[in-house]
Amino acid sequence: MSGLLESLEVDVPGGAPARVPTPLPGDLRLARLSLNQRTAARWTLHEALEGARAAGLPAVGLWREPVADVGLDVAVREVRASGLRVSSLCRGGFFTTADRAERVRAISDNRAAIDEAAALGARTLVLVPGGLPPGDRDLPAARARVAEAVADLVPYARERGVVLGIEPMNPVYAADRGVVSTLAQALELASTHGADEVGVVVDTFHLWWEPGVLALLESCGDRIVSYQVCDWVTPLPADTLLARGMMGDGHVDFAAFTAAVARSGYSGDVEVEIFNADVWAAPGEQVVATMARRYVELVQPYL
Amino acid sequence: MSGLLESLEVDVPGGAPARVPTPLPGDLRLARLSLNQRTAARWTLHEALEGARAAGLPAVGLWREPVADVGLDVAVREVRASGLRVSSLCRGGFFTTADRAERVRAISDNRAAIDEAAALGARTLVLVPGGLPPGDRDLPAARARVAEAVADLVPYARERGVVLGIEPMNPVYAADRGVVSTLAQALELASTHGADEVGVVVDTFHLWWEPGVLALLESCGDRIVSYQVCDWVTPLPADTLLARGMMGDGHVDFAAFTAAVARSGYSGDVEVEIFNADVWAAPGEQVVATMARRYVELVQPYL
Repeated sequence: MSGLLESLEVDVPGGAPARVPTPLPGDLRLARLSLNQRTAARWTLHEALEGARAAGLPAVGLWREPVADVGLDVAVREVRASGLRVSSLCRGGFFTTADRAERVRAISDNRAAIDEAAALGARTLVLVPGGLPPGDRDLPAARARVAEAVADLVPYARERGVVLGIEPMNPVYAADRGVVSTLAQALELASTHGADEVGVVVDTFHLWWEPGVLALLESCGDRIVSYQVCDWVTPLPADTLLARGMMGDGHVDFAAFTAAVARSGYSGDVEVEIFNADVWAAPGEQVVATMARRYVELVQPYL
Repeated sequence: MSGLLESLEVDVPGGAPARVPTPLPGDLRLARLSLNQRTAARWTLHEALEGARAAGLPAVGLWREPVADVGLDVAVREVRASGLRVSSLCRGGFFTTADRAERVRAISDNRAAIDEAAALGARTLVLVPGGLPPGDRDLPAARARVAEAVADLVPYARERGVVLGIEPMNPVYAADRGVVSTLAQALELASTHGADEVGVVVDTFHLWWEPGVLALLESCGDRIVSYQVCDWVTPLPADTLLARGMMGDGHVDFAAFTAAVARSGYSGDVEVEIFNADVWAAPGEQVVATMARRYVELVQPYL
């Protein structure tokens, strides 16, 4: 009976029948799966916590905006009540400005993000570096400012037990979102700090194409502070920010990539982070069920 | 008077007044400027040759399809009659298939492309590697097949005096068009062959974001066999293939990039290659005039 019921489930957003049964709460394969809040973007913080818990997930990745919507104190209480881990807080960063006043504001905002991560019990604050300032074409200088800003933040983060996670971003975003473009570059940035101070956020969407990435992942040691998964689908949608696909719907070799992450020694949570208009249009429960199925099929066996 | 007339000219596709006067035929600053045929995509081969010549350009970059439209013999005669150099022929490549029969066809087609380049007097055949085969997620294997195919073609190309130019492509195309994603990777591929056999095609659109690219360009020596310029504009259009912009309309630092190309010792032509629906909608003469103005303003001073 259960088998028949399961066979009626469909994967979102594609609509094809589920290829594997949905893992049930208590399934040990779910022990490291985290729902990044932006994957079920229509859910409030409360709904995301409840949705993850109901699906048997032990962790969530949170975003500052929906946390701010309810207020940090309420968010902290709700997270504690849920019993879930917070695998990361998204996001600090956006500190490529060359303007002194804007830079002061950016550092101040990042300190607030560090405080929020500490309050929520998130070990990792994800840093999205930011793009080129308007009209500015000096990419090496913008990258140097990222290194400076990270160095500025390290003492504050260390005191609060928060690791800064630099997220290298697919070069499609180099101009407008993230000037750190490769894992190699992020590791170099991190290397001037301790591994308990600055690490790298490894996201399949951003890094799947990088030449030599598998060997580089294996050599990361304890520098990987977050592992995020989603797929690279083609053709890209008109809004490239929403180009992320459900694992298995695109071109990423999750087996090889995940095995390389595992060989680094990474033992943390695996966040599913998907920005995709079709995923967001689907009911949150179906999104979580699909991502859990795809995770146990394509990712978890290689951890 | 001339200044007044010039001030009425507008740049395409933006529509802003021209920032510098259009260089006239005979202007020494045009001595290395080449019109890639796809920049004036609506022109026939004859119109492109005539349009380039009329604007005082000494060279064109040709594409196989419009050459085939008139037939190779006619194309060769027209090119000779025009007195223009052929800075490159686009394009061979697309040899990532794992299927044996398809691979044989790809190699055969690339040999035909080499013959065409030789007949047209193009020293460089541009190779677009090709993407992942449908359903195939093994990127390292696809990249290895590119290396094998290039090695297969080298003797044939060498006999005909044609250099194979590997074009590393922006990672936005890694899945569906070009699995060689960085200059570093293309140089490594080329390095197993002589510099008169295999080189790299350097395109600002594809490489502007690459960490360390300026130092790498400087160290290229005689490996650069084509320099192509256009801009990275944001937001990307819905069709990422048409994301290229007119120099100056986007985020590329042409001064720094071009100076690094020059320091490599590169002394060849500079092709303007722009795929862009708005550029294509403009009259060819205005496209060529705009690209000549932007070139003498943003690129040529740094050669």
